[in-house]
Amino acid sequence: MSEPIYFEDVKPGDRIDFGPLTVDREEVIGFAGQYDFQPFHLSDEAAAETHFGSIVASGWHTLALYMKMFLTEVQKRGWQEASLGGIGIDELRWLRPVRPGDTLRGTGEVIETTASRSRPEMGIVKSKVTLFNQRDEAVLTMIPITMTRTRPVA
Amino acid sequence: MSEPIYFEDVKPGDRIDFGPLTVDREEVIGFAGQYDFQPFHLSDEAAAETHFGSIVASGWHTLALYMKMFLTEVQKRGWQEASLGGIGIDELRWLRPVRPGDTLRGTGEVIETTASRSRPEMGIVKSKVTLFNQRDEAVLTMIPITMTRTRPVA
Repeated sequence: MSEPIYFEDVKPGDRIDFGPLTVDREEVIGFAGQYDFQPFHLSDEAAAETHFGSIVASGWHTLALYMKMFLTEVQKRGWQEASLGGIGIDELRWLRPVRPGDTLRGTGEVIETTASRSRPEMGIVKSKVTLFNQRDEAVLTMIPITMTRTRPVA
Repeated sequence: MSEPIYFEDVKPGDRIDFGPLTVDREEVIGFAGQYDFQPFHLSDEAAAETHFGSIVASGWHTLALYMKMFLTEVQKRGWQEASLGGIGIDELRWLRPVRPGDTLRGTGEVIETTASRSRPEMGIVKSKVTLFNQRDEAVLTMIPITMTRTRPVA
């Protein structure tokens, strides 16, 4: 394990690529059955009656797959955990359907870092995230806002 | 089944309450293990070393639980499906931790409806969603933007 990436180490323009991850049909249907049981997430037949044409992953599932890809890359790099959780997301857009068999990848780029006035142990990091499919089409964009630990005072 | 709720039926100020749903510890850990394997989502011991103190649900899991509560209420009302999927979310904020054993409920209120210029078969509905815990504390706010089918021309 290397050193944690503390807030002081994060700068606008820093970029991380993550993925690929191929979307599994059984998982799409399982997630939808548990959380987002709209017909176009559950079967090709139901989706054929909508503008989707064939089954599409729940947008909430796509977000969960983003987190899996991102954390897998973080672990691959051996970064110790300095995240203190998410504050929120701005401007999330599901731009294109995600379907079983699609292979997703993504990029995240830091766009703003802000020290916390009230909590010196953390800073706030805003990033622009884009997910792409295997045709290099953007399927999702968003601006996650996260809390990151500051370097402990020696 | 009653008539679908078409775009023309939706007006600013329309409100829906949904839930309750009690957050299950095994499900919190299972979701985190699959998608958001940060230590504070996986065990009380790891969470005790952070400002969370004890295990908290993944924010992505909370979003999935929102969708489950919302669709459960829609089905209970016998509404046929007129949603054509989500466009995006603005101003999502995770305001307080959600923990196993918490009982969530929520409200959604329509704040804006916009006809689509390019696609007469659909309209765009913006809502303000708030989730609360059993202490009536807001744990999440967001503004989902969804596509809704317009009434078919006879």
